[in-house]
Amino acid sequence: HSNSSDDSASSRYLREFLDEMRPEKIREHLRKFTRLPHLAGTQQNLVYAEQIKEEWLKFGLDSVEMVPYDVLLSYPNKSQPNYISIVDQLGNEVFNTSLAEPVPEGYEDVTDIVPPYSAFSAKGQPEGDLVYVNYGRTEDFFQLQRQMGINVTGKIVIVRYGKIFRGNKVKNAMLAGAKGIIMFSDPEDYCAAGVQPYPDGWNLPGGGAQRGNVLNLNGAGDPLTPGYPAKEYAYRHSLEDGVGLPKIPVHPIGYHDAIHLLKNMGGQIPPNNWKGALNVSYRIGPGFTDDFKTHKVRMNIQTNNQVTRIYNVIGRIRGAQEPDRYVILGGHRDAWVFGGIDPISGAAVVHETVRSAGRLLSRGWRPRRTIVFASWDAEEFGLLGSTEWAEDNAKLLQERAVAYINADSAIEGMYTLRVDCTPSLHTLVYDITKQVTSPEEREEGLSLYESWHKRDNWTNDRDAPRISKLGSGSDFEAYFIRLGIAAGRARYTKNKKTERYSSYPVYHSVYETFEIVENFYDPSFRKLQAVARVRGGLIFQLADSQLLPLDANQYAVSLSKYAQSIAQLAQMHPEEMKMYEVTFDSLFSAVENFTVAARDFHDRLETLDRTDPLQVRIVNDQLMYLERAFIDPLGLPGRPFYRHVIFAPSSHNKYAGESFPGIYDSLFDIENSANPEKAWEEVKRQISIAAFTVHAAAMTLTPPSVSSTKTNDSTNV
Amino acid sequence: HSNSSDDSASSRYLREFLDEMRPEKIREHLRKFTRLPHLAGTQQNLVYAEQIKEEWLKFGLDSVEMVPYDVLLSYPNKSQPNYISIVDQLGNEVFNTSLAEPVPEGYEDVTDIVPPYSAFSAKGQPEGDLVYVNYGRTEDFFQLQRQMGINVTGKIVIVRYGKIFRGNKVKNAMLAGAKGIIMFSDPEDYCAAGVQPYPDGWNLPGGGAQRGNVLNLNGAGDPLTPGYPAKEYAYRHSLEDGVGLPKIPVHPIGYHDAIHLLKNMGGQIPPNNWKGALNVSYRIGPGFTDDFKTHKVRMNIQTNNQVTRIYNVIGRIRGAQEPDRYVILGGHRDAWVFGGIDPISGAAVVHETVRSAGRLLSRGWRPRRTIVFASWDAEEFGLLGSTEWAEDNAKLLQERAVAYINADSAIEGMYTLRVDCTPSLHTLVYDITKQVTSPEEREEGLSLYESWHKRDNWTNDRDAPRISKLGSGSDFEAYFIRLGIAAGRARYTKNKKTERYSSYPVYHSVYETFEIVENFYDPSFRKLQAVARVRGGLIFQLADSQLLPLDANQYAVSLSKYAQSIAQLAQMHPEEMKMYEVTFDSLFSAVENFTVAARDFHDRLETLDRTDPLQVRIVNDQLMYLERAFIDPLGLPGRPFYRHVIFAPSSHNKYAGESFPGIYDSLFDIENSANPEKAWEEVKRQISIAAFTVHAAAMTLTPPSVSSTKTNDSTNV
Repeated sequence: HSNSSDDSASSRYLREFLDEMRPEKIREHLRKFTRLPHLAGTQQNLVYAEQIKEEWLKFGLDSVEMVPYDVLLSYPNKSQPNYISIVDQLGNEVFNTSLAEPVPEGYEDVTDIVPPYSAFSAKGQPEGDLVYVNYGRTEDFFQLQRQMGINVTGKIVIVRYGKIFRGNKVKNAMLAGAKGIIMFSDPEDYCAAGVQPYPDGWNLPGGGAQRGNVLNLNGAGDPLTPGYPAKEYAYRHSLEDGVGLPKIPVHPIGYHDAIHLLKNMGGQIPPNNWKGALNVSYRIGPGFTDDFKTHKVRMNIQTNNQVTRIYNVIGRIRGAQEPDRYVILGGHRDAWVFGGIDPISGAAVVHETVRSAGRLLSRGWRPRRTIVFASWDAEEFGLLGSTEWAEDNAKLLQERAVAYINADSAIEGMYTLRVDCTPSLHTLVYDITKQVTSPEEREEGLSLYESWHKRDNWTNDRDAPRISKLGSGSDFEAYFIRLGIAAGRARYTKNKKTERYSSYPVYHSVYETFEIVENFYDPSFRKLQAVARVRGGLIFQLADSQLLPLDANQYAVSLSKYAQSIAQLAQMHPEEMKMYEVTFDSLFSAVENFTVAARDFHDRLETLDRTDPLQVRIVNDQLMYLERAFIDPLGLPGRPFYRHVIFAPSSHNKYAGESFPGIYDSLFDIENSANPEKAWEEVKRQISIAAFTVHAAAMTLTPPSVSSTKTNDSTNV
Repeated sequence: HSNSSDDSASSRYLREFLDEMRPEKIREHLRKFTRLPHLAGTQQNLVYAEQIKEEWLKFGLDSVEMVPYDVLLSYPNKSQPNYISIVDQLGNEVFNTSLAEPVPEGYEDVTDIVPPYSAFSAKGQPEGDLVYVNYGRTEDFFQLQRQMGINVTGKIVIVRYGKIFRGNKVKNAMLAGAKGIIMFSDPEDYCAAGVQPYPDGWNLPGGGAQRGNVLNLNGAGDPLTPGYPAKEYAYRHSLEDGVGLPKIPVHPIGYHDAIHLLKNMGGQIPPNNWKGALNVSYRIGPGFTDDFKTHKVRMNIQTNNQVTRIYNVIGRIRGAQEPDRYVILGGHRDAWVFGGIDPISGAAVVHETVRSAGRLLSRGWRPRRTIVFASWDAEEFGLLGSTEWAEDNAKLLQERAVAYINADSAIEGMYTLRVDCTPSLHTLVYDITKQVTSPEEREEGLSLYESWHKRDNWTNDRDAPRISKLGSGSDFEAYFIRLGIAAGRARYTKNKKTERYSSYPVYHSVYETFEIVENFYDPSFRKLQAVARVRGGLIFQLADSQLLPLDANQYAVSLSKYAQSIAQLAQMHPEEMKMYEVTFDSLFSAVENFTVAARDFHDRLETLDRTDPLQVRIVNDQLMYLERAFIDPLGLPGRPFYRHVIFAPSSHNKYAGESFPGIYDSLFDIENSANPEKAWEEVKRQISIAAFTVHAAAMTLTPPSVSSTKTNDSTNV
């Protein structure tokens, strides 16, 4: 091995890079970008963009540019606010939900706080009986229809937030025939035990509510320009043809308002797991009890869709040897209100990373590869800024992007580190976290790895900290699931074993302030510093290592686990498996093939002549393109922009990542198909696609001039 | 510039490589592989495959492998032959078409000559009145329906071969409601003036007929496994769900048989351009004249579809410096019968190229990049062998393939060279043809370039030999139109100004023998030698030049021409253009942008440090990926496997290449749309996609670490 002197210089720079990131600086960045609401498409969010551009230039990036797109956004009508009423038989509004959240102390004079709303809701005033459908999951609607015998056609459904992406709840309600949907935050899902509501603690107050978009984009980006960037000359579909826009009114409320809607509901008593923590019976409906039989619920929704200019900020450090290889650190800037956690806890970390990188540049460092920093806009409206940029630069990214590290909220709890990433990054994540000190008090001398390991051991699989699959719901989506770029995210999180509420209590409410971070989540800002070092360390090593720190063996380990697990899921139907001759043999054989190819690949790296720039480039290209190999250009069924055969959200929940999503969804559909033979045919088709894809990925790891079919593939003579 | 000594060594090897290719060797190869019929899926075609493998290994390739797939083929039923009858009112067959072509002299004892048939025809015995529809083009059916007022629903249509791909004729007949289609070879389209029928000349005898598949695959490959290779574990669709299979019986006949069907037809006298060269009136029908009113036509088609194993032969020369860069020379081996012209005139040329390359290897040469030689199977059944291999290796090819040179029939006329290729290869084609001597008698001292130039000058555009756009109908399709790999083809051709017959007269008949080449097309085998040198020279330079010999400036020139031409086509509807606000400004601006980026790119090459392997690799990657930049992953409308935005066949004729096919087809549809506003919306959408794609391609040529939006793009602030 040569270039070891280069490598040791790089290690010294890495140490300096991590050391340079300071808690007080992160605090300063967080303070600066959370003073005013900066919703996507507003003037203030452009002001912050310009400020970021200026500061990144000042920090020393080689270039920083604003990249605008004109995308479909959605805002409440300022003169006709959205609300929900209970109306009596005369049509009088006997109860109305609140028009805004109580503003937190210190922000009383702030204007332009957008009230809670469901972005992209249809307009309308549907009126009717309420039906309560728990979390609004596919299985909740099945239970409602099949076990409770309730048809929601023409009804307004009320569901609690949590468990799945809200857009899936809306889709399920539409499919079931509802004419409106109300979503509320139940204390069971949005309050931690023994914690006070904000500002005395970090729980969601009863007057708070969760904003959020209710699209079903499945990765399309701007609903009017699916597949292409929303530039001036872009062809725009009509609103009717837009992707993923709900056709019914949708509105979010807090639990104080929810009590009024729920307390007099009639109908069946629900099963226990449909009951939340409010002091009501959670009856299913339809409609109210006999005493209030004539009362109806009316939604008043006036939200407007509007094509609006948004701005990404893109900064670069030009790579010294391989300027055409990109390592991307991207996170969004737009917030529903102040964005104290989402996204500025993340954006502050990016800012500090840029500052630290700038310091290194001034000391003579320049990374081997190009680093791209992105401040995305309109993430909250469907990952629009990041997706449009991915569409705009798809060819360059496909050919040149080494990895994408996401930088949304850096903290969602106070317990330990959480990492979701592609398997090829597992080894690097462990390596970096061993080089970062624990931010926990009374853990001097412990590394972040050790601190994390003792709190969240991956016991069943291996003795190491748990790393999870990437799902969706943040800006890595287009990079990972559409383009097949190795991706990961890291943040501080809660203790999942004891804290059972969804995301964090004040999520997407006005109470996501600077103060909630400073007073509760991370008073020392050392947790955010640790996250900055993890994200920054990943970027640094990916950009500066001579050999890319990507691990194909870990991919093999994960594939093997996923194949076992999806085969086990199918084995819940042993008779049909036999009847329709469904077998996972081809998939297991492909995974075995991949495992051998990965092992041989890494064995060959041991003897690589690292003084030969072309030989190094060739194996790095193999590593870079490994993730790309899992992309099926035809996409998953019905979802042309979800193209990753190994990882994608299930069709039933955008947030969570499933492995072998094509097989998973086809198995999910078994239960509901009118034609089981056809449904099993689709399972077989999906297994075949998965097996082919894993075989093809194995080929990319074999020596590049050798017969592509040298790996064990029974078809070949 | 450095590496000039390498370059001059490479030039000497190129000279040796071209000199080594010998006419008598090509003759020998042609003779060897045309003795017996070798239809795809038959034992004899496997025997030839094994023979090719052995000889390529003996010639000195580093590796040669057989790569099998199991694809849907189609054969006549041996015990129930296909034919067409005229039946009288009692149902008696008063005329039957012939069951086979008269076998040419010397081949009387040959078995397994498949009779003329339309591969993948539906089975059936439809009976009814005939309607004559000229060439069966979209415009012919329009004229029939709109001007002649004839509805072909439930009729059997008879069309002449020529002008468009036969599969399009079948599709048009199905769309028009026909229940069967008969295709005949009219002497106007399959006989040259003053030439005798074979064996006295090279015209089609009256008993000869054109075999061919009648699929509408649009690039899907095996109809049962679209998008994925037809391996053992592949999921196969049912025949009903197969891609592009016709739903009606189809059969081809020669002109002797056609006379019997046509001579008594009744109905209108057709326009002059519907009349062929037979001594019949070419009346339209439906049905026969009053004298034969009760006679009907009955088709008897018993052809079977069958999943069958096919074999590609893949040989390789490992690249010395960049083994992970592939230059491919591929052509098919399977023939309808003997394949004297199609494909063995091409396969013999590949064989000679391999032999010559082997000689060079033995003298110490090794190319910079890997060369792949392919003998494809089942081209005649829908480009199946080449497409399945492309599907099998899609990731590797997308990431590593520099260029694909096609090697189907090397000769289709005796006049001069014909080249169809991507614009970035224009310069290299001219360069190579200047290094090859003219094969024409009395042209000693002239280069092929000069000989070609004086016969086919590109007068309107420039003073240089004409180079045409790639269409489809041969094995480059998946590589060029689906994957976006720079591609080209070269062959000897007829004089288009004076020879107006389609392809060549004996095309796909039993009369495509070794003797037709030896006696008529190329007795000296010097024309085939010239073609071998062009194809081989392209491969050599693409594999061995330090800088890839691809020319982005020529792409700019072509794009500009195509943009002008498609805008002009749209201008045939000036009022609608105004009414629907259709403009080509965005496309012209994108082309201008591309032109500047290409010029700057080539300017920078002038000062490139060619001693720096990474810098060289980086610009070569830009050149390699240029063609890839024109691929739209979403495909053309309704054609997911035709993804090249600049070049694809129109939906109305698979053979011919259109530029900006998405725009072209949407303009074509204007005429027939029930909703012109919607049709024009589609035109606008297609213009926007084209503009975006050309912009994106321009970005790939800018310096790789520079802002991707530095090129002039009005959206950016």
